[in-house]
Amino acid sequence: MPSQSATNLTQTHYLIATSEREVLSGHRGIVVWMTGLSGAGKSSIAVGLDQFLNQQRQRSFILDGDNLRSGLCADLSFSDKDRHENIRRAGEVAKLMAEAGLVVICALISPFAADRHMVRESCEKSSVPFMEIFINAPLEVCEHRDPKHLYQRARAGTISGFTGIDSPYEAPIKPELELRTDLNTLGECIHQLAICILEKTKLNPST
Amino acid sequence: MPSQSATNLTQTHYLIATSEREVLSGHRGIVVWMTGLSGAGKSSIAVGLDQFLNQQRQRSFILDGDNLRSGLCADLSFSDKDRHENIRRAGEVAKLMAEAGLVVICALISPFAADRHMVRESCEKSSVPFMEIFINAPLEVCEHRDPKHLYQRARAGTISGFTGIDSPYEAPIKPELELRTDLNTLGECIHQLAICILEKTKLNPST
Repeated sequence: MPSQSATNLTQTHYLIATSEREVLSGHRGIVVWMTGLSGAGKSSIAVGLDQFLNQQRQRSFILDGDNLRSGLCADLSFSDKDRHENIRRAGEVAKLMAEAGLVVICALISPFAADRHMVRESCEKSSVPFMEIFINAPLEVCEHRDPKHLYQRARAGTISGFTGIDSPYEAPIKPELELRTDLNTLGECIHQLAICILEKTKLNPST
Repeated sequence: MPSQSATNLTQTHYLIATSEREVLSGHRGIVVWMTGLSGAGKSSIAVGLDQFLNQQRQRSFILDGDNLRSGLCADLSFSDKDRHENIRRAGEVAKLMAEAGLVVICALISPFAADRHMVRESCEKSSVPFMEIFINAPLEVCEHRDPKHLYQRARAGTISGFTGIDSPYEAPIKPELELRTDLNTLGECIHQLAICILEKTKLNPST
């Protein structure tokens, strides 16, 4: 006798479509996925962008890798398998939030191209707009910044599997936008990204 | 050499507080947690409530147990351990969405009191308002309705661990609201719940 499985599930269909939620918000929902090395500037850009969008009356929310790991993903380690699961869950939550009409600002190292591609596909399958943003600074710059002293610990060998040191970072090949945080100020990066987002979240009155 | 663990995490603090997101929404965020047997009416109430709130210009979103199990929780079975994890994840997502300013309508059987209590505590710890709503109809009524033909299959022994048949349902002792769906119409139940929610999501201009 099998125990219950996914075959017992009946999808509940909502009466309110994403488009109606978006009319209420005044803008579209979108997943803005920022990927990059630790120290590249993802969280700083996320926080500034969130504030900027709020001033523009866009409903945004940050899904930050570190914050998720103290809640939804608290049960996961940094093994490759768990890193994959971490990104999968973050992607699913981001998609749900975008369906609810929010601009979802995701800030996760997300080192593996296949994982990011999985999130993109999952969003696109649900007609949720997705943008991959490469927050780029050379490893030596990130290591010099080392805001969380993690590179120092990785070099000292007190942590292992650290992205950029003894675990690979697969840079995006065709991101929707690349921001060089070593060549531009934080404000410039936020502004450039915000312009892109506002263009994509605009409601088209003809649809 | 230990691999990375939660001790490497640095909480990112957002510049925009939940209260500011709520001003933008025009109402507070809240987790509305509906629990009850399969067939008690949770999903029907969720869908109707979502529509009603949308008409009231409240930003709501449904987290439905079946829908979550095809996405965020697709890797989980119906074992006690996985049911617990299912509720934990749903609770974490609900909390995040409420922090983003949404009225989060959760519709999950969530048969175990301890799991529901865990979600309540997690929300309260983050100052997220939480309401437990007992969607109540006698087992025989739910079994007679059997909208998904699951009771029939559980009685026939083709599925096991089914709540109310061979797995317990622990009814809430002190829910914020109990709705008897066998004694009231769907419309009455939705209206009664909506009144409660609108009272709790009202922004207090003095705060």
